[in-house]
Amino acid sequence: MGGTVEDVQKMYISYNNIHKCCQRVAAGIMAKGERPDVIIAITGGGMIPARIIRSFLKSRGQKNIPIQAIGLSLYEDMGLDDQVESIGKEVIRTQWLDFGSLEQHFDSLIGKRVLIVDEVDDTRTTLHYAVTELEQEVRSQQIKLNRIEEKTIFSIFVLHNKDKPKKASLPEEMMSEDRYLAAETVPDVWLCYPWEAMDIEEHTELAIKQGNN
Amino acid sequence: MGGTVEDVQKMYISYNNIHKCCQRVAAGIMAKGERPDVIIAITGGGMIPARIIRSFLKSRGQKNIPIQAIGLSLYEDMGLDDQVESIGKEVIRTQWLDFGSLEQHFDSLIGKRVLIVDEVDDTRTTLHYAVTELEQEVRSQQIKLNRIEEKTIFSIFVLHNKDKPKKASLPEEMMSEDRYLAAETVPDVWLCYPWEAMDIEEHTELAIKQGNN
Repeated sequence: MGGTVEDVQKMYISYNNIHKCCQRVAAGIMAKGERPDVIIAITGGGMIPARIIRSFLKSRGQKNIPIQAIGLSLYEDMGLDDQVESIGKEVIRTQWLDFGSLEQHFDSLIGKRVLIVDEVDDTRTTLHYAVTELEQEVRSQQIKLNRIEEKTIFSIFVLHNKDKPKKASLPEEMMSEDRYLAAETVPDVWLCYPWEAMDIEEHTELAIKQGNN
Repeated sequence: MGGTVEDVQKMYISYNNIHKCCQRVAAGIMAKGERPDVIIAITGGGMIPARIIRSFLKSRGQKNIPIQAIGLSLYEDMGLDDQVESIGKEVIRTQWLDFGSLEQHFDSLIGKRVLIVDEVDDTRTTLHYAVTELEQEVRSQQIKLNRIEEKTIFSIFVLHNKDKPKKASLPEEMMSEDRYLAAETVPDVWLCYPWEAMDIEEHTELAIKQGNN
């Protein structure tokens, strides 16, 4: 591979490293007694960390935490940059919560601890969108069901937070109450996740060399 | 660990092994020119293979295949065995397709190639439910939109098919046309997936010893 400039700026991450990131963050959540009632995975990036962290948020005899998926994509990632300004939105919603199915077995999100999971916090645009829309969704449910006193507590878990200027913010309260959980804060490099690797053996070796195993 | 009877019946699978399973099955799909238009992940087990296989179903310059999640759980896995008979259903639906959000950017499932993904085909109950309900869903959409001539093609991808008597079946046509894709057919052993591992280093070593890396 050689030590070209391009290599240096790439951070290779193994599956086992990601597994341990999830395990570590989950241990922190459990130590504080803040086990979530529901996990919301942002597809596609959030699906893998969401499934892994669920394993570590389970106590003996407890049921699995239900996972709901929401599909959010940035226009820029879909090669639709030119449409952003005319449409006036940066995020495309491809799937939303299914309250109809959820409530039959789970009540609703009202009054619950909700853990939102994604793989990376890059510009913070997607996370901002997710939190804002979910809060709004719960609020309108509360009004509809006349349950406005109950407090819903949102937390965020990402594998990596990129240390860079963000285009959007998250609620003050979430930050000050340590409900924003990044397993690692990293420089603004190219994150090479294992699920994108065309040669997983070579990828894992590179991750080990970089200490990301 | 020692070679106790319990150990022998456990099959340890590493993340890298799962990655390669997805890569191999995807190569087969691409070689046949049968790239799916949409992936449907059955949560929680299907989320990891769904996200991984998507990487290998992408050609240069093509957009990511959209993923929709559906939440299906067996009553028996939720400790609700005793309720099954009275309710008369074996599967709990916790999330369904979000056609409202999907169609804005994607049309619908009508006339599409749809790849349903789960981790394991054990009794086949969940997969049977998923295919039956999805076919029905598409059918009613077709009638609603007056597009009954278009053929929707469902395929299934699982990491492991357990070689055991099944409680439910899949469409004949799907089997005969090789649209049921199991990366591996295994005996009826205890599959230890990496995302359940409390010690991922030890787990990976055990998987390597068993040749599942």
